[in-house]
Amino acid sequence: MKKHILFLATIASVYLFAACSSSDKKEDKTTTEKDSYDLALADKMGMFSPLPAQAESAENPITDQKVALGHKLYFDKNLSKEGHISCNSCHNLNTFGVDNLPTSPGDAGKNGGRNSPTVLNAALHATQFWDGRAKDVEEQAGMPILNPIEMAIPKEDFLIDRLSKIEGYSKLFEQAFPGEGNAISYKNLRLAIGAFERKLITPSAFDNYLNGDLTALTKQEKSGLLTFINVGCASCHNGAALGGNSFQKFGVHKNYWELTGSKNIDKGRAEVTKNEADNYVFKVPSLRNIDKTSPYFHDGSVSKLDKTIEIMAESQLNYKLSPEEKDNIIAFLKSLTGKVDEKFKKAPIN
Amino acid sequence: MKKHILFLATIASVYLFAACSSSDKKEDKTTTEKDSYDLALADKMGMFSPLPAQAESAENPITDQKVALGHKLYFDKNLSKEGHISCNSCHNLNTFGVDNLPTSPGDAGKNGGRNSPTVLNAALHATQFWDGRAKDVEEQAGMPILNPIEMAIPKEDFLIDRLSKIEGYSKLFEQAFPGEGNAISYKNLRLAIGAFERKLITPSAFDNYLNGDLTALTKQEKSGLLTFINVGCASCHNGAALGGNSFQKFGVHKNYWELTGSKNIDKGRAEVTKNEADNYVFKVPSLRNIDKTSPYFHDGSVSKLDKTIEIMAESQLNYKLSPEEKDNIIAFLKSLTGKVDEKFKKAPIN
Repeated sequence: MKKHILFLATIASVYLFAACSSSDKKEDKTTTEKDSYDLALADKMGMFSPLPAQAESAENPITDQKVALGHKLYFDKNLSKEGHISCNSCHNLNTFGVDNLPTSPGDAGKNGGRNSPTVLNAALHATQFWDGRAKDVEEQAGMPILNPIEMAIPKEDFLIDRLSKIEGYSKLFEQAFPGEGNAISYKNLRLAIGAFERKLITPSAFDNYLNGDLTALTKQEKSGLLTFINVGCASCHNGAALGGNSFQKFGVHKNYWELTGSKNIDKGRAEVTKNEADNYVFKVPSLRNIDKTSPYFHDGSVSKLDKTIEIMAESQLNYKLSPEEKDNIIAFLKSLTGKVDEKFKKAPIN
Repeated sequence: MKKHILFLATIASVYLFAACSSSDKKEDKTTTEKDSYDLALADKMGMFSPLPAQAESAENPITDQKVALGHKLYFDKNLSKEGHISCNSCHNLNTFGVDNLPTSPGDAGKNGGRNSPTVLNAALHATQFWDGRAKDVEEQAGMPILNPIEMAIPKEDFLIDRLSKIEGYSKLFEQAFPGEGNAISYKNLRLAIGAFERKLITPSAFDNYLNGDLTALTKQEKSGLLTFINVGCASCHNGAALGGNSFQKFGVHKNYWELTGSKNIDKGRAEVTKNEADNYVFKVPSLRNIDKTSPYFHDGSVSKLDKTIEIMAESQLNYKLSPEEKDNIIAFLKSLTGKVDEKFKKAPIN
């Protein structure tokens, strides 16, 4: 059985570690010498990939002009009917692309039904929203603007008329979409915001490790990574974003609400597809910056990361993590905390 | 370690099995008495769900009239420029929704670059095509028609003009889309074909097992299912379709082409997204009817199921299956072979 082999490998690696090393220093300059964890991890890392510099799109090539326009739009409260909120209100770039609330207040102060996920690295996801109802960030960007509980713009033309009257926008749209007869359009607004979001990529220590710097992670972080893989977390949380690339049922072994205490039983993707087979199925979220984006789950029902990890192990893997395993996984997850480009954290001056 | 527990559980279940049973008969009428495999499987089955009667869609409610129109369109060679092929040519409903070729010849006889996946149960997938470039069967249906190598229709209006001149179509479109000013449109053609495909669901012995008939699977099939889960196959091949709900890199532990012998190195989803992080990433295919839909992989490069399973275990899980494990998994996979409704296997008479 593979599991047995993995178990023996883990035991062996722990033994080797104890036998050959007593230091756990990031300062160690030797990047090519593999420790026991590196050896145990070497063959398993293909399921991850380092973050790209930006999330390219064949349908929406990234240009500086689109990004500049998208940057301005992202911070502009004119995108909400009464002018109370911008994209950045719920997906705040100073707080890792979230507002740290279970659910977010819309333009009229009423809260939505699901937790606002982080915008950071979201452009890498296979689909958008917790239920995957938009295929990319360009499609996503247009939807909260028109949602009556969120930004509450009554219709596309209403917003385009409004922006046309604001000095500077027409020119920025023309620069971002040169040669188009009518550059200032809702479609181009979506494309510009999407292009901006494609720049919100946050490489971290984990990427350095993936790129070959074996000292980029501490021994505890590596141990947590090994557990993360061996226990089964990485079966869903893999790829560049450690998630965002699949739909899975939340609550394989136990109804999720029995663990999260959720008051509203959200059926997830079945709400979109109307298909029973999609009951309680949600997009697997990315774990990039997870330490900074509490509260957790689709409804923000759990605020602590350790409790969240416990629930995941129990609901998805029918496994009870030891306190040490949990600590190590948390240490690893913290190595996924990266940085958003400083110049994107504030509204542009123009 | 979870793996160790699983290993012990497996050992225990094998022991229990040996101790308490020597029969392996489907004819056993006792459906409520759990054998050792049922006990070992009981807590793991939440990752699957039985097939629904049809794949519902909030955006395209299924009606008999749409299905009747979609059925006719699906078999109509007028949907290709020179009239050589229909949807059914590559996705043949008499041969489990495929043509059993590595790649399929288009209207002009030239082959496409990827294997034609089965249309059966495809409406349940989270996205369509090997690279997920269409979000549902309705979007998918419109694309091969306009693809120059596939059905080669030069543009949407060309096809709608052609169909308008064929007796009966206008009326069928009006019946399928009542109250619409101009019912015969490319969009409605896509919706009708999509509605038809939403009926192509093939429940099998596995669904009976999921629905509580513990005799629906043989002991060998159950043993294969347990291995399928414990080894890690079910991490990706889960849900109602046992796949179709995630994107994963093909070749986690080894470049896929070193195992499949693929001549063309297809980058998969990266061809759509232009993103390096998506290199060699493909949609995980459904395993429904997998025994009948050879050859396998995105390029049809491997024709034998046992070889395919070996490659999957090696490339994705770094695991070498024993001959017995492989046999058992194949036995389980055969329990996923279902039936398409007989009335859909031929062109409708009208």
